[in-house]
Amino acid sequence: MSGAVSPSQAGLEEGLVDEVVASFAEAPSERLREVMGSVVRHLHAIVRETRLTEQEWNTAIEFLTQTGHITDDRRQEFIMLSDVLGVSMQTVAVSNQLVGNATEATVFGPFFHEGSPEVPNGGDIAAGAHGQPCWVEGRVTDTDGKPLPGARLEVWENDEDGFYDVQYTDGRVAGRAHVFADDEGYYRFWALTPTRYPLPTDGPVGRLLEAVGRSPWRAAHLHFMVTHEGYRRLVTHIFVQGDDLSDVVFAVRESLVLPFEQQAAGTSAPDGRDLGDATWSRVRFDVVLAPEK
Amino acid sequence: MSGAVSPSQAGLEEGLVDEVVASFAEAPSERLREVMGSVVRHLHAIVRETRLTEQEWNTAIEFLTQTGHITDDRRQEFIMLSDVLGVSMQTVAVSNQLVGNATEATVFGPFFHEGSPEVPNGGDIAAGAHGQPCWVEGRVTDTDGKPLPGARLEVWENDEDGFYDVQYTDGRVAGRAHVFADDEGYYRFWALTPTRYPLPTDGPVGRLLEAVGRSPWRAAHLHFMVTHEGYRRLVTHIFVQGDDLSDVVFAVRESLVLPFEQQAAGTSAPDGRDLGDATWSRVRFDVVLAPEK
Repeated sequence: MSGAVSPSQAGLEEGLVDEVVASFAEAPSERLREVMGSVVRHLHAIVRETRLTEQEWNTAIEFLTQTGHITDDRRQEFIMLSDVLGVSMQTVAVSNQLVGNATEATVFGPFFHEGSPEVPNGGDIAAGAHGQPCWVEGRVTDTDGKPLPGARLEVWENDEDGFYDVQYTDGRVAGRAHVFADDEGYYRFWALTPTRYPLPTDGPVGRLLEAVGRSPWRAAHLHFMVTHEGYRRLVTHIFVQGDDLSDVVFAVRESLVLPFEQQAAGTSAPDGRDLGDATWSRVRFDVVLAPEK
Repeated sequence: MSGAVSPSQAGLEEGLVDEVVASFAEAPSERLREVMGSVVRHLHAIVRETRLTEQEWNTAIEFLTQTGHITDDRRQEFIMLSDVLGVSMQTVAVSNQLVGNATEATVFGPFFHEGSPEVPNGGDIAAGAHGQPCWVEGRVTDTDGKPLPGARLEVWENDEDGFYDVQYTDGRVAGRAHVFADDEGYYRFWALTPTRYPLPTDGPVGRLLEAVGRSPWRAAHLHFMVTHEGYRRLVTHIFVQGDDLSDVVFAVRESLVLPFEQQAAGTSAPDGRDLGDATWSRVRFDVVLAPEK
């Protein structure tokens, strides 16, 4: 708090915080009461610590209004805002505490969509999306190393132009699918070597990043959501070792940075696929699921 | 913080906060850096203190999205949200610190619009809005009691049906005007005796209030914005003594609660206006402006 505040002024400000918190005292849900109490105390602390001006408050209202107005079914600017403030990653950290050698979680992002197509183990999730082919394989186990046959792996990624399928207006479904691990927990599929892309910068979140001199670029990544009955849902990415790992949404965890081995043109593919004169890459990602609480 | 968090987990969470705060370190504006640092620290503290779940985070994103989508030129749900969380009133408290006997400020509210008509001193600001006539008079001075001739008093209020003119779709301008104090700082006008009304409850803010068992009603009030060159702009309300003063936006200050004296039908009006067989009320509100910083 500012040292310039008189005791009577401080008393007035603190009294207001208490009054607002008390207004939630009769909430039937204890959890909602707890969360709203925390929200109120911290929002008021921001106002008091910064001695927020009415003009700055107006700016905040206008910023939130613009964020709401640009958000639609294909663009979620509030998730982007949460992401660039690290709030999404903090929620992930709190909700997915480290459990032994279980694979670490990271942010969900705004580009997941329900209803992806199933691809057979060994199939191609790119479905025509542009980029360098990448062979992805690994095994899903529990923290004791026991394989988890039938684990579901949902994967999604951007194309080399920097866009997810849902960002196009032509209804395409590409770079998005799910596969199931085999009887021994192994999975494999063709995808694209991940490439860096910037968050959309034509909205309020992009303007905020520009005003504070932050880069809008995400580290290159491939999204995974891995589920199996009896285990904690894992939402994560894998990142490309040796690539620029600076990331506007703070999602990079060292354990998720893997070698994507570049293969010269003509190198034979694991499944005998004819890649013509294209280069390709391969990566192994073993997934360890934590038990459900 | 939860006692159940391991040192390594706490370290991971704290490290993330520091990383996000550091990402704003190069902001050219020191003030923006300061405000964003406070915002980041407190948002992360909410997530960590409450051990926010991913489902709750989803609910928050959806709530903000709905708040954005219902907001338009005539309805400002983000201001309502700030109001019912006491954030608006805290900003007012911080930005308008108590200065001697200067009139206290209170919230601006979402219903002010630029471009109100001028009404001559002694005129009628109701302009056909329904409600009991109310004679409002007083004097505008500085904190030493020196009159402030020509002070501008912008006033606005709801009708007895609970709506401001801007909430109607017919373009009416009623219950909204400005007058100027006379050569001795005195002002007077006809308005309506203020009446209680609920905030709109058909949006996300109304649903939040319902979920926590809070009343959406505002204490009856008449809005003032008083300005004079060389003095701090005063945005305030006056409230009705003896009325129910519970207020969903925490705007009531004891010093702003004034006697509105009810007048029997037939009582002659101060300006000789013929009120027929209507009852009316009168209130005196002396305004004291603080010097500009």
